[in-house]
Amino acid sequence: MSTNAALSATERTRIRRLPERAGSDRDELYAILDAGRLCHLGVIVDGSPRVLPTGYGRDGDTLYLHGSTGAVSLRAEEICVTVTHLDGLVLARSVFHHSMNYRSAVIYGRPHLVTDPSEKLAGLRAVVEQLTPGRWDTARRPTRKELAATAVLALPLDEASVKTRQGPPGDDEEDYALDVWAGVLPVTQSFGVPVPDPLLRPGIPYDGV
Amino acid sequence: MSTNAALSATERTRIRRLPERAGSDRDELYAILDAGRLCHLGVIVDGSPRVLPTGYGRDGDTLYLHGSTGAVSLRAEEICVTVTHLDGLVLARSVFHHSMNYRSAVIYGRPHLVTDPSEKLAGLRAVVEQLTPGRWDTARRPTRKELAATAVLALPLDEASVKTRQGPPGDDEEDYALDVWAGVLPVTQSFGVPVPDPLLRPGIPYDGV
Repeated sequence: MSTNAALSATERTRIRRLPERAGSDRDELYAILDAGRLCHLGVIVDGSPRVLPTGYGRDGDTLYLHGSTGAVSLRAEEICVTVTHLDGLVLARSVFHHSMNYRSAVIYGRPHLVTDPSEKLAGLRAVVEQLTPGRWDTARRPTRKELAATAVLALPLDEASVKTRQGPPGDDEEDYALDVWAGVLPVTQSFGVPVPDPLLRPGIPYDGV
Repeated sequence: MSTNAALSATERTRIRRLPERAGSDRDELYAILDAGRLCHLGVIVDGSPRVLPTGYGRDGDTLYLHGSTGAVSLRAEEICVTVTHLDGLVLARSVFHHSMNYRSAVIYGRPHLVTDPSEKLAGLRAVVEQLTPGRWDTARRPTRKELAATAVLALPLDEASVKTRQGPPGDDEEDYALDVWAGVLPVTQSFGVPVPDPLLRPGIPYDGV
Protein backbone atom coordinates (compact mmCIF):
# COMPACT_ATOMS: atom_id res chain seq x y z
CA MET A 1 0.00 0.00 0.00
CA SER A 2 2.80 2.35 0.93
CA THR A 3 6.13 2.26 -0.84
CA ASN A 4 9.23 3.88 0.51
CA ALA A 5 12.34 3.93 -1.56
CA ALA A 6 15.44 5.28 0.12
CA LEU A 7 17.76 6.11 -2.73
CA SER A 8 20.73 6.81 -0.53
CA ALA A 9 22.22 5.44 2.64
CA THR A 10 21.91 8.52 4.82
CA GLU A 11 19.94 8.66 8.04
CA ARG A 12 17.63 11.41 6.84
CA THR A 13 16.54 9.51 3.76
CA ARG A 14 15.65 6.45 5.80
CA ILE A 15 11.85 6.29 5.94
CA ARG A 16 10.78 5.94 9.56
CA ARG A 17 7.02 6.07 9.21
CA LEU A 18 5.38 3.08 7.49
CA PRO A 19 8.51 1.49 6.00
CA GLU A 20 6.52 -1.55 4.80
CA ARG A 21 8.18 -1.63 1.47
CA ALA A 22 11.53 0.06 1.50
CA GLY A 23 13.32 -0.04 -1.80
CA SER A 24 15.83 1.74 -3.89
CA ASP A 25 14.46 2.68 -7.24
CA ARG A 26 16.04 5.52 -9.10
CA ASP A 27 13.56 5.16 -11.95
CA GLU A 28 10.73 5.84 -9.52
CA LEU A 29 12.47 9.02 -8.34
CA TYR A 30 12.90 10.20 -11.92
CA ALA A 31 9.30 9.36 -12.80
CA ILE A 32 7.97 11.43 -9.88
CA LEU A 33 10.20 14.36 -10.74
CA ASP A 34 9.46 14.19 -14.46
CA ALA A 35 5.68 14.19 -13.87
CA GLY A 36 5.77 17.38 -11.81
CA ARG A 37 5.45 21.04 -12.67
CA LEU A 38 6.57 22.71 -9.47
CA CYS A 39 8.55 21.79 -6.40
CA HIS A 40 8.65 23.13 -2.88
CA LEU A 41 12.11 24.42 -2.05
CA GLY A 42 13.15 24.37 1.60
CA VAL A 43 15.94 26.60 2.85
CA ILE A 44 17.08 28.03 6.16
CA VAL A 45 17.02 31.81 6.30
CA ASP A 46 18.24 33.53 9.48
CA GLY A 47 17.85 30.28 11.37
CA SER A 48 14.25 29.64 10.31
CA PRO A 49 12.83 27.19 7.80
CA ARG A 50 11.33 28.67 4.65
CA VAL A 51 9.37 26.77 1.98
CA LEU A 52 8.71 28.34 -1.40
CA PRO A 53 7.04 26.96 -4.54
CA THR A 54 9.23 27.20 -7.60
CA GLY A 55 9.95 25.58 -10.94
CA TYR A 56 12.63 22.98 -11.53
CA GLY A 57 14.02 20.71 -14.19
CA ARG A 58 15.95 17.47 -14.37
CA ASP A 59 18.83 16.69 -16.69
CA GLY A 60 20.18 13.21 -16.04
CA ASP A 61 21.05 12.95 -12.37
CA THR A 62 21.06 16.69 -11.75
CA LEU A 63 18.14 18.83 -10.63
CA TYR A 64 18.14 22.46 -11.75
CA LEU A 65 16.46 25.42 -10.10
CA HIS A 66 16.43 28.96 -11.32
CA GLY A 67 15.58 32.38 -10.04
CA SER A 68 16.57 35.98 -9.88
CA THR A 69 20.23 36.49 -9.07
CA GLY A 70 19.04 38.50 -6.05
CA ALA A 71 16.81 35.78 -4.54
CA VAL A 72 17.63 34.97 -0.91
CA SER A 73 16.39 31.41 -1.35
CA LEU A 74 19.00 30.71 -4.01
CA ARG A 75 21.87 31.64 -1.72
CA ALA A 76 21.26 28.80 0.74
CA GLU A 77 24.12 26.42 1.40
CA GLU A 78 21.90 23.46 1.94
CA ILE A 79 18.45 22.86 0.50
CA CYS A 80 15.64 20.35 0.41
CA VAL A 81 13.49 19.97 -2.69
CA THR A 82 10.16 18.15 -2.50
CA VAL A 83 7.86 17.22 -5.36
CA THR A 84 4.43 15.82 -4.48
CA HIS A 85 1.60 14.45 -6.58
CA LEU A 86 -1.76 14.09 -4.88
CA ASP A 87 -3.41 11.05 -6.49
CA GLY A 88 -6.45 10.43 -4.36
CA LEU A 89 -8.41 11.00 -1.19
CA VAL A 90 -8.58 7.83 0.88
CA LEU A 91 -11.94 7.51 2.63
CA ALA A 92 -11.77 4.95 5.39
CA ARG A 93 -14.50 3.64 7.67
CA SER A 94 -12.82 5.36 10.60
CA VAL A 95 -11.71 8.98 10.72
CA PHE A 96 -8.34 7.76 12.00
CA HIS A 97 -7.50 5.85 8.81
CA HIS A 98 -8.40 8.61 6.39
CA SER A 99 -5.39 9.33 4.23
CA MET A 100 -4.25 10.41 0.81
CA ASN A 101 -2.77 8.54 -2.09
CA TYR A 102 0.30 10.32 -3.32
CA ARG A 103 3.76 10.09 -4.77
CA SER A 104 6.48 12.26 -3.33
CA ALA A 105 10.20 12.71 -3.74
CA VAL A 106 12.43 14.48 -1.23
CA ILE A 107 15.93 15.51 -2.24
CA TYR A 108 18.61 16.87 0.06
CA GLY A 109 21.87 18.49 -0.87
CA ARG A 110 24.21 21.39 -1.31
CA PRO A 111 23.54 23.05 -4.65
CA HIS A 112 26.14 24.90 -6.62
CA LEU A 113 25.64 28.00 -8.67
CA VAL A 114 26.13 27.12 -12.33
CA THR A 115 28.70 29.36 -13.96
CA ASP A 116 29.64 27.37 -17.05
CA PRO A 117 27.63 29.02 -19.88
CA SER A 118 26.66 25.80 -21.64
CA GLU A 119 25.57 24.08 -18.41
CA LYS A 120 23.63 27.20 -17.46
CA LEU A 121 21.78 27.09 -20.77
CA ALA A 122 21.14 23.35 -20.38
CA GLY A 123 19.84 23.90 -16.85
CA LEU A 124 17.48 26.66 -17.94
CA ARG A 125 16.30 24.52 -20.80
CA ALA A 126 15.51 21.71 -18.34
CA VAL A 127 13.50 24.12 -16.15
CA VAL A 128 11.53 25.58 -19.07
CA GLU A 129 10.85 22.18 -20.65
CA GLN A 130 9.67 20.78 -17.31
CA LEU A 131 7.07 23.51 -16.89
CA THR A 132 6.15 24.02 -20.54
CA PRO A 133 7.38 21.17 -22.75
CA GLY A 134 8.37 22.20 -26.26
CA ARG A 135 8.65 25.90 -25.53
CA TRP A 136 12.45 26.04 -25.55
CA ASP A 137 12.28 25.49 -29.30
CA THR A 138 9.21 27.66 -29.89
CA ALA A 139 9.86 30.81 -27.90
CA ARG A 140 12.65 33.32 -28.19
CA ARG A 141 15.81 32.05 -26.48
CA PRO A 142 17.42 34.02 -23.65
CA THR A 143 19.65 36.95 -24.47
CA ARG A 144 23.01 37.45 -22.82
CA LYS A 145 21.42 40.06 -20.55
CA GLU A 146 18.59 37.74 -19.52
CA LEU A 147 21.08 34.98 -18.81
CA ALA A 148 23.09 37.32 -16.60
CA ALA A 149 19.97 38.20 -14.59
CA THR A 150 19.13 34.54 -13.99
CA ALA A 151 20.78 32.36 -11.39
CA VAL A 152 20.78 28.62 -12.06
CA LEU A 153 21.43 26.17 -9.24
CA ALA A 154 22.48 22.56 -9.77
CA LEU A 155 21.61 19.95 -7.17
CA PRO A 156 22.97 16.43 -7.61
CA LEU A 157 20.29 13.74 -7.17
CA ASP A 158 22.56 11.86 -4.76
CA GLU A 159 20.54 11.93 -1.57
CA ALA A 160 16.85 11.36 -1.98
CA SER A 161 13.90 9.37 -0.77
CA VAL A 162 10.65 8.44 -2.40
CA LYS A 163 7.43 7.79 -0.53
CA THR A 164 4.17 6.75 -2.11
CA ARG A 165 0.78 5.52 -1.02
CA GLN A 166 -1.67 3.91 -3.41
CA GLY A 167 -4.70 1.68 -3.03
CA PRO A 168 -7.74 1.37 -0.79
CA PRO A 169 -7.97 2.36 2.87
CA GLY A 170 -6.58 0.09 5.53
CA ASP A 171 -9.24 -0.09 8.23
CA ASP A 172 -9.22 -1.87 11.56
CA GLU A 173 -10.62 -5.39 11.36
CA GLU A 174 -13.78 -4.65 13.35
CA ASP A 175 -14.58 -1.55 11.27
CA TYR A 176 -15.16 -3.47 8.02
CA ALA A 177 -18.63 -4.30 9.33
CA LEU A 178 -19.56 -0.62 9.61
CA ASP A 179 -22.17 0.95 7.39
CA VAL A 180 -19.72 3.55 6.05
CA TRP A 181 -18.67 3.99 2.42
CA ALA A 182 -14.97 3.41 1.95
CA GLY A 183 -12.69 3.73 -1.03
CA VAL A 184 -10.68 6.24 -2.98
CA LEU A 185 -11.68 9.46 -4.69
CA PRO A 186 -9.10 9.89 -7.48
CA VAL A 187 -7.54 13.34 -7.87
CA THR A 188 -6.17 14.42 -11.22
CA GLN A 189 -4.52 17.53 -12.55
CA SER A 190 -5.66 18.51 -16.01
CA PHE A 191 -5.33 21.32 -18.53
CA GLY A 192 -8.13 23.57 -19.63
CA VAL A 193 -8.66 25.29 -22.97
CA PRO A 194 -5.68 27.56 -23.79
CA VAL A 195 -6.45 31.24 -23.18
CA PRO A 196 -4.72 33.42 -25.78
CA ASP A 197 -2.96 36.56 -24.58
CA PRO A 198 -5.32 39.48 -25.43
CA LEU A 199 -2.32 41.03 -27.16
CA LEU A 200 -1.63 37.96 -29.32
CA ARG A 201 -1.23 38.85 -32.99
CA PRO A 202 -4.00 37.35 -35.14
CA GLY A 203 -3.33 34.14 -37.04
CA ILE A 204 -0.92 32.48 -34.63
CA PRO A 205 -2.26 29.04 -33.74
CA TYR A 206 -1.79 27.41 -30.34
CA ASP A 207 1.13 25.02 -30.61
CA GLY A 208 2.08 24.51 -27.04
CA VAL A 209 2.60 22.02 -24.30
CA MET B 1 -0.58 40.75 -12.56
CA SER B 2 1.19 39.65 -9.43
CA THR B 3 -0.31 40.23 -6.00
CA ASN B 4 1.67 40.10 -2.81
CA ALA B 5 -0.08 40.43 0.48
CA ALA B 6 2.09 40.58 3.55
CA LEU B 7 -0.21 39.77 6.41
CA SER B 8 2.27 40.66 9.08
CA ALA B 9 4.93 43.25 9.64
CA THR B 10 7.96 40.95 9.90
CA GLU B 11 10.93 41.09 7.59
CA ARG B 12 10.50 37.55 6.34
CA THR B 13 6.92 38.08 5.21
CA ARG B 14 7.86 41.16 3.22
CA ILE B 15 7.72 40.16 -0.44
CA ARG B 16 10.98 41.17 -2.09
CA ARG B 17 10.48 39.80 -5.57
CA LEU B 18 7.82 41.53 -7.72
CA PRO B 19 6.09 43.52 -4.96
CA GLU B 20 3.92 45.35 -7.50
CA ARG B 21 0.83 45.09 -5.42
CA ALA B 22 1.55 44.62 -1.76
CA GLY B 23 -1.51 44.34 0.40
CA SER B 24 -2.74 42.84 3.58
CA ASP B 25 -5.72 40.62 3.05
CA ARG B 26 -6.52 38.00 5.63
CA ASP B 27 -9.50 36.77 3.60
CA GLU B 28 -7.16 35.96 0.73
CA LEU B 29 -4.95 33.93 3.06
CA TYR B 30 -7.95 31.99 4.35
CA ALA B 31 -9.29 31.39 0.82
CA ILE B 32 -5.97 29.92 -0.31
CA LEU B 33 -5.73 27.70 2.75
CA ASP B 34 -9.35 26.57 2.56
CA ALA B 35 -9.04 25.60 -1.10
CA GLY B 36 -6.08 23.28 -0.48
CA ARG B 37 -5.78 19.62 0.38
CA LEU B 38 -2.17 19.32 1.42
CA CYS B 39 0.58 21.62 2.56
CA HIS B 40 4.35 21.41 2.50
CA LEU B 41 5.75 21.54 6.01
CA GLY B 42 9.25 22.92 6.43
CA VAL B 43 11.31 22.09 9.50
CA ILE B 44 14.95 22.07 10.47
CA VAL B 45 16.26 18.63 11.45
CA ASP B 46 19.87 18.32 12.60
CA GLY B 47 20.63 21.68 11.06
CA SER B 48 19.22 20.86 7.62
CA PRO B 49 16.00 21.96 5.97
CA ARG B 50 13.37 19.29 5.43
CA VAL B 51 10.13 19.67 3.45
CA LEU B 52 7.37 17.09 3.77
CA PRO B 53 3.86 16.95 2.27
CA THR B 54 1.16 16.58 4.89
CA GLY B 55 -2.47 17.34 5.65
CA TYR B 56 -3.66 20.39 7.54
CA GLY B 57 -6.81 22.12 8.63
CA ARG B 58 -7.85 25.63 9.62
CA ASP B 59 -10.12 26.60 12.47
CA GLY B 60 -10.48 30.38 12.71
CA ASP B 61 -7.01 31.88 12.91
CA THR B 62 -5.28 28.65 13.85
CA LEU B 63 -3.75 26.12 11.50
CA TYR B 64 -3.69 22.51 12.67
CA LEU B 65 -1.31 19.76 11.64
CA HIS B 66 -1.38 16.17 12.79
CA GLY B 67 0.84 13.16 12.71
CA SER B 68 2.18 10.22 14.63
CA THR B 69 3.34 11.13 18.13
CA GLY B 70 6.75 9.76 17.10
CA ALA B 71 7.22 11.95 14.00
CA VAL B 72 10.44 13.95 14.01
CA SER B 73 8.85 16.68 11.89
CA LEU B 74 6.27 17.40 14.59
CA ARG B 75 8.91 18.07 17.23
CA ALA B 76 10.32 21.14 15.49
CA GLU B 77 10.39 24.37 17.43
CA GLU B 78 9.85 26.53 14.42
CA ILE B 79 8.07 25.61 11.22
CA CYS B 80 7.03 27.00 7.86
CA VAL B 81 3.84 25.83 6.19
CA THR B 82 3.26 26.51 2.50
CA VAL B 83 0.11 25.86 0.49
CA THR B 84 0.30 26.32 -3.28
CA HIS B 85 -2.29 26.11 -6.03
CA LEU B 86 -0.99 25.87 -9.58
CA ASP B 87 -3.55 27.68 -11.74
CA GLY B 88 -1.91 27.90 -15.12
CA LEU B 89 1.15 27.65 -17.30
CA VAL B 90 2.10 31.04 -18.66
CA LEU B 91 3.46 30.76 -22.19
CA ALA B 92 5.30 33.90 -23.17
CA ARG B 93 6.88 34.88 -26.46
CA SER B 94 10.30 34.64 -24.85
CA VAL B 95 11.61 31.74 -22.80
CA PHE B 96 12.66 34.25 -20.14
CA HIS B 97 9.09 35.36 -19.40
CA HIS B 98 7.58 31.90 -19.11
CA SER B 99 5.96 31.60 -15.74
CA MET B 100 3.13 30.02 -13.83
CA ASN B 101 -0.13 31.38 -12.49
CA TYR B 102 -0.54 30.36 -8.89
CA ARG B 103 -1.80 31.26 -5.44
CA SER B 104 0.43 30.52 -2.49
CA ALA B 105 0.41 31.14 1.22
CA VAL B 106 3.48 30.91 3.45
CA ILE B 107 3.05 30.78 7.21
CA TYR B 108 5.82 31.00 9.79
CA GLY B 109 5.64 30.28 13.46
CA ARG B 110 6.28 28.25 16.55
CA PRO B 111 3.57 25.61 16.88
CA HIS B 112 2.45 24.18 20.17
CA LEU B 113 1.43 20.63 20.84
CA VAL B 114 -2.27 20.58 21.62
CA THR B 115 -2.97 18.87 24.94
CA ASP B 116 -6.46 20.10 25.74
CA PRO B 117 -8.77 17.22 24.70
CA SER B 118 -11.49 19.36 23.17
CA GLU B 119 -9.03 21.47 21.17
CA LYS B 120 -7.28 18.29 20.05
CA LEU B 121 -10.57 16.91 18.75
CA ALA B 122 -11.40 20.22 17.07
CA GLY B 123 -7.96 20.29 15.46
CA LEU B 124 -8.29 16.75 14.14
CA ARG B 125 -11.75 17.55 12.87
CA ALA B 126 -10.33 20.53 10.97
CA VAL B 127 -7.64 18.34 9.39
CA VAL B 128 -10.08 15.59 8.37
CA GLU B 129 -12.66 18.04 7.03
CA GLN B 130 -10.00 19.87 5.03
CA LEU B 131 -8.93 16.70 3.25
CA THR B 132 -12.29 14.95 3.04
CA PRO B 133 -15.20 17.32 3.77
CA GLY B 134 -18.13 15.70 5.53
CA ARG B 135 -16.31 12.62 6.71
CA TRP B 136 -16.01 13.65 10.36
CA ASP B 137 -19.74 13.05 10.62
CA THR B 138 -19.83 9.96 8.40
CA ALA B 139 -16.92 7.85 9.58
CA ARG B 140 -16.25 6.36 12.99
CA ARG B 141 -14.84 8.98 15.35
CA PRO B 142 -11.43 8.47 16.99
CA THR B 143 -11.15 6.25 20.05
CA ARG B 144 -9.21 7.31 23.11
CA LYS B 145 -6.35 5.05 21.99
CA GLU B 146 -6.29 6.57 18.51
CA LEU B 147 -6.31 10.06 19.98
CA ALA B 148 -3.38 9.16 22.21
CA ALA B 149 -1.39 7.95 19.18
CA THR B 150 -2.00 11.19 17.29
CA ALA B 151 -0.12 14.41 17.84
CA VAL B 152 -1.91 17.63 16.91
CA LEU B 153 0.04 20.84 16.42
CA ALA B 154 -1.50 24.29 16.51
CA LEU B 155 0.09 27.12 14.56
CA PRO B 156 -1.34 30.62 14.95
CA LEU B 157 -1.90 32.37 11.62
CA ASP B 158 -0.07 35.43 12.87
CA GLU B 159 2.85 35.63 10.50
CA ALA B 160 2.05 34.90 6.91
CA SER B 161 2.40 36.13 3.37
CA VAL B 162 0.39 35.53 0.26
CA LYS B 163 1.76 35.64 -3.24
CA THR B 164 -0.24 35.14 -6.41
CA ARG B 165 0.21 35.53 -10.12
CA GLN B 166 -2.71 35.56 -12.54
CA GLY B 167 -3.23 36.76 -16.08
CA PRO B 168 -1.41 36.71 -19.40
CA PRO B 169 2.35 36.75 -19.91
CA GLY B 170 4.26 39.97 -19.65
CA ASP B 171 6.60 40.08 -22.60
CA ASP B 172 9.22 42.60 -23.60
CA GLU B 173 7.86 45.31 -25.88
CA GLU B 174 9.78 44.21 -28.97
CA ASP B 175 8.70 40.56 -28.56
CA TYR B 176 5.01 41.24 -29.15
CA ALA B 177 5.77 41.27 -32.88
CA LEU B 178 7.12 37.71 -32.77
CA ASP B 179 5.35 34.87 -34.47
CA VAL B 180 5.00 32.88 -31.21
CA TRP B 181 1.76 31.82 -29.53
CA ALA B 182 1.37 33.38 -26.10
CA GLY B 183 -1.22 32.97 -23.41
CA VAL B 184 -2.16 30.78 -20.50
CA LEU B 185 -2.86 27.07 -20.31
CA PRO B 186 -5.22 26.73 -17.31
CA VAL B 187 -4.42 23.96 -14.82
CA THR B 188 -7.18 22.48 -12.69
CA GLN B 189 -7.39 19.80 -10.08
CA SER B 190 -10.44 17.58 -10.35
CA PHE B 191 -11.91 14.43 -8.89
CA GLY B 192 -12.45 11.19 -10.78
CA VAL B 193 -15.12 8.55 -10.28
CA PRO B 194 -15.02 7.18 -6.72
CA VAL B 195 -13.33 3.75 -6.51
CA PRO B 196 -15.01 1.58 -3.86
CA ASP B 197 -12.79 -0.41 -1.52
CA PRO B 198 -12.83 -4.03 -2.82
CA LEU B 199 -13.79 -4.99 0.73
CA LEU B 200 -16.76 -2.57 0.84
CA ARG B 201 -19.93 -4.28 2.03
CA PRO B 202 -22.61 -4.36 -0.69
CA GLY B 203 -25.37 -1.79 -0.64
CA ILE B 204 -23.46 1.14 0.82
CA PRO B 205 -23.77 4.12 -1.55
CA TYR B 206 -21.02 6.68 -2.07
CA ASP B 207 -21.81 9.68 0.09
CA GLY B 208 -18.53 11.44 0.31
CA VAL B 209 -16.68 14.63 -0.32
